[in-house]
Amino acid sequence: MNTATIEETMRAIGVQARHASARMAIATTQQKAQALRTLAQLLREQSPALQTENAKDVERARANGLAEPMVDRLKLTDKVLATAAEGCEQLAAMPDIIGDIIGLRQQPSGIRVGQMRVPLGVFGMIYESRPNVTIEAASLAIKSGNACILRGGSEAIDSNKAQAALVRQALISAQLPEDGVQLVPTTDRAAVGSLITMPEYVDVIIPRGGRGLIERISAEAKVPVIKHLDGICHTYVDDPCNIDQAVTIADNAKTQKYSPCNATETLLVARGVADAFLPKIAAIYAAKGVEMRVTGDVAPLVSAAPQANVVPATEADWSTEYLAPIISIKIVAGLDEAIAHINQYGSHHTDAIVTTNHQHAQRFLREVDSASVMVNASTRFADGFEFGLGAEIGISTDKFHARGPVGVEGLTSLKYIVLGEGEIRQ
Amino acid sequence: MNTATIEETMRAIGVQARHASARMAIATTQQKAQALRTLAQLLREQSPALQTENAKDVERARANGLAEPMVDRLKLTDKVLATAAEGCEQLAAMPDIIGDIIGLRQQPSGIRVGQMRVPLGVFGMIYESRPNVTIEAASLAIKSGNACILRGGSEAIDSNKAQAALVRQALISAQLPEDGVQLVPTTDRAAVGSLITMPEYVDVIIPRGGRGLIERISAEAKVPVIKHLDGICHTYVDDPCNIDQAVTIADNAKTQKYSPCNATETLLVARGVADAFLPKIAAIYAAKGVEMRVTGDVAPLVSAAPQANVVPATEADWSTEYLAPIISIKIVAGLDEAIAHINQYGSHHTDAIVTTNHQHAQRFLREVDSASVMVNASTRFADGFEFGLGAEIGISTDKFHARGPVGVEGLTSLKYIVLGEGEIRQ
Repeated sequence: MNTATIEETMRAIGVQARHASARMAIATTQQKAQALRTLAQLLREQSPALQTENAKDVERARANGLAEPMVDRLKLTDKVLATAAEGCEQLAAMPDIIGDIIGLRQQPSGIRVGQMRVPLGVFGMIYESRPNVTIEAASLAIKSGNACILRGGSEAIDSNKAQAALVRQALISAQLPEDGVQLVPTTDRAAVGSLITMPEYVDVIIPRGGRGLIERISAEAKVPVIKHLDGICHTYVDDPCNIDQAVTIADNAKTQKYSPCNATETLLVARGVADAFLPKIAAIYAAKGVEMRVTGDVAPLVSAAPQANVVPATEADWSTEYLAPIISIKIVAGLDEAIAHINQYGSHHTDAIVTTNHQHAQRFLREVDSASVMVNASTRFADGFEFGLGAEIGISTDKFHARGPVGVEGLTSLKYIVLGEGEIRQ
Repeated sequence: MNTATIEETMRAIGVQARHASARMAIATTQQKAQALRTLAQLLREQSPALQTENAKDVERARANGLAEPMVDRLKLTDKVLATAAEGCEQLAAMPDIIGDIIGLRQQPSGIRVGQMRVPLGVFGMIYESRPNVTIEAASLAIKSGNACILRGGSEAIDSNKAQAALVRQALISAQLPEDGVQLVPTTDRAAVGSLITMPEYVDVIIPRGGRGLIERISAEAKVPVIKHLDGICHTYVDDPCNIDQAVTIADNAKTQKYSPCNATETLLVARGVADAFLPKIAAIYAAKGVEMRVTGDVAPLVSAAPQANVVPATEADWSTEYLAPIISIKIVAGLDEAIAHINQYGSHHTDAIVTTNHQHAQRFLREVDSASVMVNASTRFADGFEFGLGAEIGISTDKFHARGPVGVEGLTSLKYIVLGEGEIRQ
């Protein structure tokens, strides 16, 4: 397709999405649950067929010389499909928040004023290789009463087309508009350019992928973007704290998995507990092969561990997201310096304090300017499922609209409703 | 100043605002109330001095040949200043929502997860002639714990400088940072260009002014904008309804004031009540000199009124914001057509139904895609004070983040907080 044709195709998709969104918005709770349960059933029944389509993507990826870990991310394994089906059923079982009315209060004029939760309208989802995002996004669209336009990566186009066809079947089975969820049929990059510049048809864009993709989309979009940039997360070990608890949390926050955005990248330690805490955590990190990038005063406390890999930290380390078995470690005077460091160098994603002091915990919660702030828990908990949102379409490091893990509620807005009995303005 | 100097000045203001915002965010309820009460007191005590400065603006405006209604908007009269002082006191007396924790719930892992309301950080306010916006914006910044940067119109620069000096005095009296509220000292247009493209220092821009200003800012901003475009508001007179109530509401919604954005511009009338309703409302509109732009089937029902000014409506009328004694009138088959018309031609601002049918009321509330949707009340109620927000910094016709009248809450965000007792991710 040439650019003009793509523009035309995308506008046609936009018109259909806007049209479908009106019907999605008034879908009953039962219709939405039925569509989600049917989708779960189809995913299970059609697993072999989906995997046949998926095999085309995998084969093409290998032929193109894609590295095997990237090929793995493409695969719709039995487990991936089972998880997707379960996710749809869990969403179906969750309360429907669309139509909720909050804060209805009588005003001096006599009118009653409240707010009703309604869908945003149409969201555009732009994602890279993982084809399971297709079902995650489609199911959240259905549950939240939004229409959506999905733009997956070219590597997964066959898998995405096969899954999108099942979604349309599920929508039709519940008398919902099949255009409630549309997959962009072309893998041409120009389609993204169109999708993010149609405010008349698209209310918000959610990109999922590397920093490059997200920055490019944010820079060029003419509609709001729910974006997630770096996860430079901190665990601050306070004075006073339970040292064993601090060791357990600092271990888990770094080493439970290295690649997620909510893994801790910098460990800040209050001077008063450094002697007691650092040798213990260093022994664990050393045993697990975690490289420690440390300030001069930290080095002597962590170097004694057998096989310790200790490197002097540079200024750049404090603003680096490693996503790897590396951690930067700094001793701070106390709470004030810890909060200042986090607000200066962090990415406003997720930060935790380990403390036994109530006032310190309260100050940390209030003063750390991040999407998720934790007391005595692992930063790895920053996740839609762990937070009880039921599902997560992304994580926002912005403050505007949704912040932190974004679930159904982040795909809604509150409109004012006024109930009167003939009142007029004086 | 040349452009480079302005850029430099604006960045310095940005750095100061970001710095001040950390202290504003942790201000106590008492400090904020004290700053607001001191500001009210200063506005009263310093009224003569403010009016001396204001006179310079008024004189300059007249010398520049500004039309007298525009000159009026510039004036800091006794009444304007008294209202500003009262507004500050009302805000001081309102509950402080910063630090509120909502939805704290235990999750299966053991952690408790909730959300804490916190300030957005720094907002930039860009406004045209009315100098009283300076105090409205400053007082909302103080109450919401945000820092703000004010960029008023060049016509009001002397008034704005004098008021901003009082705000700084009030902040200092409460041990709050004086840079919590800063006025841009230059009236050069380049300052606006800088202000809206500093995401590192400014979290949101709120423009108040004509459509041209708002569109320009939205197009060029690199930070989120809380924007208010047209107010093409509808009153739909349903079948069945209380005809007298419908007449009272349709009268008030159009004629109580012609210039506000929440005045009704289009009247939709269900066919079944047209004969009973239209001649009555036409008599009122005719007596008040309101021009009626009507469809062919409406004309015979409204033309009998003495002095009726009846004109055939064109397609353009359905998407025109008159802000004048003009109303467009159309007969519709019923609820479905009314909702479809409003969603197609309206500006998603404020729309009302007059009905006695419960199901119609519920469908209208749910299906009309506007920031404020009303049953049996005048559209003129769409206003921060009438909605009980205490104050209003603007009205948003967007769906993202704040929607409808924006008060203190619209200047905040919710961050996740996690309270643990040593939990780690399995």
